[in-house]
Amino acid sequence: MAIPTIRRFLFGEPFPTSREAHERLDKVRALAVFASDPISSNAYATEAIMSVLLVLGTGALSMTLPLGLGVAALVLMVIFSYIQTIIHYPDGGGAYTVTKDNLGKIPSLIAAGALLTDYVLTVSVSSAAGVRAVTSAFPELVEYRVWMALAAILLITWVNLRGVRESGTIFAVPTYAFVGGVLLVIGIGLVRYWGWFGLTPIVPETHEMVEGAALSGFAYLWVLLRAFAGGCTALTGIEAISNGTKAFQAPESKNAAQTMVAMGVMAMALFIGITYLSTHLGLIPEASHGESILSQMTRQITGTGFLYYWVQIFTALILFLAANTGFQDFPRLSSFLSKDGFMPRWMQNRWDRLVYGSGIMTLAVVSSIIVIIFHADEIAMLPLYALGVMLSFSLSQAGMFRLMGRISKLKPGEVLETQYTRIHYETGTGWKRAVNAIGAVVTFMVLIVLIATKFTEGAWIVVVAIPLLVYMFNSIDHHYQEVKLGLRTKDLTSEDFPPIAEAVIIPIGDINRCSLQALRYAQRLSTDVRAVTIVTDQATLERFKIRWERFPEITEGIKLEAIFYDYRDILTPLVDYIKKVNTVEFPDQVITVVIPEFVSDNLMENLLHNQTANFLRTRLQVYQDIVIIDVPYQIGVTRKRHKEIPEVMAESPATSSKN
Amino acid sequence: MAIPTIRRFLFGEPFPTSREAHERLDKVRALAVFASDPISSNAYATEAIMSVLLVLGTGALSMTLPLGLGVAALVLMVIFSYIQTIIHYPDGGGAYTVTKDNLGKIPSLIAAGALLTDYVLTVSVSSAAGVRAVTSAFPELVEYRVWMALAAILLITWVNLRGVRESGTIFAVPTYAFVGGVLLVIGIGLVRYWGWFGLTPIVPETHEMVEGAALSGFAYLWVLLRAFAGGCTALTGIEAISNGTKAFQAPESKNAAQTMVAMGVMAMALFIGITYLSTHLGLIPEASHGESILSQMTRQITGTGFLYYWVQIFTALILFLAANTGFQDFPRLSSFLSKDGFMPRWMQNRWDRLVYGSGIMTLAVVSSIIVIIFHADEIAMLPLYALGVMLSFSLSQAGMFRLMGRISKLKPGEVLETQYTRIHYETGTGWKRAVNAIGAVVTFMVLIVLIATKFTEGAWIVVVAIPLLVYMFNSIDHHYQEVKLGLRTKDLTSEDFPPIAEAVIIPIGDINRCSLQALRYAQRLSTDVRAVTIVTDQATLERFKIRWERFPEITEGIKLEAIFYDYRDILTPLVDYIKKVNTVEFPDQVITVVIPEFVSDNLMENLLHNQTANFLRTRLQVYQDIVIIDVPYQIGVTRKRHKEIPEVMAESPATSSKN
Repeated sequence: MAIPTIRRFLFGEPFPTSREAHERLDKVRALAVFASDPISSNAYATEAIMSVLLVLGTGALSMTLPLGLGVAALVLMVIFSYIQTIIHYPDGGGAYTVTKDNLGKIPSLIAAGALLTDYVLTVSVSSAAGVRAVTSAFPELVEYRVWMALAAILLITWVNLRGVRESGTIFAVPTYAFVGGVLLVIGIGLVRYWGWFGLTPIVPETHEMVEGAALSGFAYLWVLLRAFAGGCTALTGIEAISNGTKAFQAPESKNAAQTMVAMGVMAMALFIGITYLSTHLGLIPEASHGESILSQMTRQITGTGFLYYWVQIFTALILFLAANTGFQDFPRLSSFLSKDGFMPRWMQNRWDRLVYGSGIMTLAVVSSIIVIIFHADEIAMLPLYALGVMLSFSLSQAGMFRLMGRISKLKPGEVLETQYTRIHYETGTGWKRAVNAIGAVVTFMVLIVLIATKFTEGAWIVVVAIPLLVYMFNSIDHHYQEVKLGLRTKDLTSEDFPPIAEAVIIPIGDINRCSLQALRYAQRLSTDVRAVTIVTDQATLERFKIRWERFPEITEGIKLEAIFYDYRDILTPLVDYIKKVNTVEFPDQVITVVIPEFVSDNLMENLLHNQTANFLRTRLQVYQDIVIIDVPYQIGVTRKRHKEIPEVMAESPATSSKN
Repeated sequence: MAIPTIRRFLFGEPFPTSREAHERLDKVRALAVFASDPISSNAYATEAIMSVLLVLGTGALSMTLPLGLGVAALVLMVIFSYIQTIIHYPDGGGAYTVTKDNLGKIPSLIAAGALLTDYVLTVSVSSAAGVRAVTSAFPELVEYRVWMALAAILLITWVNLRGVRESGTIFAVPTYAFVGGVLLVIGIGLVRYWGWFGLTPIVPETHEMVEGAALSGFAYLWVLLRAFAGGCTALTGIEAISNGTKAFQAPESKNAAQTMVAMGVMAMALFIGITYLSTHLGLIPEASHGESILSQMTRQITGTGFLYYWVQIFTALILFLAANTGFQDFPRLSSFLSKDGFMPRWMQNRWDRLVYGSGIMTLAVVSSIIVIIFHADEIAMLPLYALGVMLSFSLSQAGMFRLMGRISKLKPGEVLETQYTRIHYETGTGWKRAVNAIGAVVTFMVLIVLIATKFTEGAWIVVVAIPLLVYMFNSIDHHYQEVKLGLRTKDLTSEDFPPIAEAVIIPIGDINRCSLQALRYAQRLSTDVRAVTIVTDQATLERFKIRWERFPEITEGIKLEAIFYDYRDILTPLVDYIKKVNTVEFPDQVITVVIPEFVSDNLMENLLHNQTANFLRTRLQVYQDIVIIDVPYQIGVTRKRHKEIPEVMAESPATSSKN
């Protein structure tokens, strides 16, 4: 099957550029779309706290609930201060946009690097955690977990390359099914735990008390901080709504803000519920790849029945949807960066189905590598996670703080215009500014805690990666600026171009149909054509000359130059000769090299030929003053071409208009 | 460090083509050079017999000696009939040459495929066995055996790429040291075993008799045949002298024949000695990677003293030398095949140091893969080994049989001229022919035994590989024949070439320095230049036109054609347009496409640009009637080039001669 056919089969018919989807979401569906990431964190956030506390012994697990409440407070504060962003950037105000608009280039690149890192981890962590939900229910699958996680990523990649949009309905089912299922389990759990309505009370599991490290003072506080940092993974994905304000129905800002509050309440209700029950039922996190806390909790409350499998299935699904969120966010942000010249230009090219294919592929590859390195163990990946999000929170709130300062200077009726938004005079900037300041400072402090406590567990990777990304963005920007300067046409006249010399050089190894065709083409081009041949001795040259003279019509007016060279690497003397003509005979002029090229469209056949023509072209391509002419020669091509043309012409979707 | 510098450091200065080594070897050194392969087989051949017999129980090991004598008889017969080859092909008569000269193309390709397979296995088996000699003495190294074998192959590859020739002296030391050491051990062993000269007699090891499978009749015979087949690995490398007759001092044939006899006697003396003592001392082969039989025998006879380490060290060295033999034979045979058009032409290219580098690299890669697959366990590889050699023996003897028939028809004074040799009238062709016939039949029967007994143990790989190789040789030959036909200049006149049309097409995305430079070049070429641009809508086109009209000097006389296209894949409409011009407007004529190409010699920078120019060239290169002109444009290249030129010019070893 030809590659275009396979491509169509896999990805469907290409979409025309003029067809752009502008779906607007109502609040119910928007909640489902944007909440899958933060809500799905409930599959691992509680466990992340508990598994740290376990070093202090099973007794210390009682600290899980207070720490969970601290995380919930942080979430509510972040949501509260993000509402300001939503209101002031109705066209979408992700951390990159807000930071760029208010703090300048470098902070915005830091925010972008942080977000990209986190989007990659969203995919790795969510797909690994989704697989864990499956293997918790079916432990015999645990040895295939890496393959399963990679298959999940591959499937999500394929769906995204086909360009299936964030269809609210598709998202709504697993999100609400998960929330409903877990809320039901929590409800039953609380009722049974408290012994209400005469239901069989649950007897908390009694484990032998395991003594942990007996720590005190600073060391104890350190473990608590680390546990808190583990819980902060619950915050990932909260910022998504601020990015996607434009996807809401009007009034966008208001709807988005309300949805954000609903999302926060829902996510935290689950988080606190799970945390309360896990600790009060005496659950203990298992070693890596073991049964998850959520699975243990559900099993203990409802038994291994319908509701248990319901929760496990929708846990897996909502986690895969959360991974899908990464596939929406990463390509979108990288296309912004690409448009601004901080990432390769082709990252903004839309593929056949109008998707940012390069971004999707980059994300798929990098997140798969992380899954492989960490053996699909999401608990091991968590120390890398949430850092990026926290850094972008902090930067974005700092940007908002700055913006509020500028707004406070407006007089009634005045309008503040920035690159990304347009803001009217408003009151209450003082307390809004204070909210943003607190948000910036608190998230920055949490960031420091995250880095400090998780540094040796893997966070150092992110600490190294973000500056490298910023450096890369900056270098790319620098290169594109240089290119822009080099290509500019301002005040350009044709005298600015180097003159084109008559000299045409044509390297010839042997006299055959291929080289004769090239000689014929060269002969028409100029009056100063030089055929250059490399020989080891006089006898070879004489034999060559006899063949040369057999075709006076074609070789007439062409000067034959022979270079004696006693090594096999014939490219060296050829390139030396060409350089000499280019720099000594015709300095600062453009010369032409004609390359007779024997080509085949069959890769295996090409391997059978010396790739001299290709190597020569590669060596010459770096010289600005050398034009290269490929005169192709291919055996049996005529037959092939005439067979192929008609259908191609018939299929062509192009319409030509003469000017 | 630049690549050329690294290359020089690793491989030394290039050798000029005129410097070709023509070392002639005296008999003592020639024996050392050619005998390393067959003599080194003694490191594993006896063990290969014993490890098969072990399935019948330890009692059956007494059959080792009779089977070994059978192998020795086969060796002497093969040597005897090979002497005929040496005499009749004084310029070298490997199996490929003799078969091609007498039986035709397909048999010769079968012989070549068989030999190439065996050369690869020579390298894999010998390096693995060499490592085994080391790990027998130092068992703690056994877990690194794969790495050690790969390192040995890498080292041998490097030495061969540097072009160190088969220097007789280098070979003489380990070969004679090994032969001397083992003969001494055998001597002491026999003396002690028989209790002569009052030396402490060796008490044979007494093992508990292990009962093996109680087989009878055909099944028993089958095991004996399999054991015999194992011993046939002692025959590998015997044919090397017939290939290298030319390396001997005059009279070449006589010296080569005498050396072959000496080699056979020496190799068989070791083989029978080792076999006799191993069985009479009651040695039992250990499981894979255990101590080798030769090591066990030496240790029991001489203790773990000086002589023991001497034998182990020189066993390892002679095995690595045997691996080196593969690195001489494989590239030489593949260069023959390449010259005859059965392998890619570049296999005959000599690299900097006048070696057949592609052959060396191919061998290194394939033999390393086999070492990895078989975990450097040479006993496991042996079932694949010796098949190829036996097949080539058989074909070569059959060829000699045919040759003798042709010689017998000569009258006194007449001369038989074939492609590879020149033979005068001679007598006694009758019995010589009989010897060759027996040789051909016996080796063919042994081949059948080898295939039948080892098929499921891995021999099937070789049985599959050889026909595949023959198919490949044949396809390559077919392709080159077709190319030769397509390129031939017989009766060629310039009317045979398609006329060159004036049409010049230049795709343009934007007006900038890069595209303007290309337009300027195109303008000079022809009166029918068409600039083609792909646009999505009229507004874009209008903006483009305004920029276009700013440079009347450059765009004068160039027709601007706009193609409206609502997809992102701009190559499709471009290629369609070019094809239409090529097939509808100018059928059967050559048209020209000018590609403005933005290039950089920095790979990372190139990644930042859309590779449209490269993709377009790749798509157009398969069309015979389209000449492609690359007009390069590079930022900042001028500065770079002027820095680089002077030293290159100074270094150039080329001398130019104007004609």
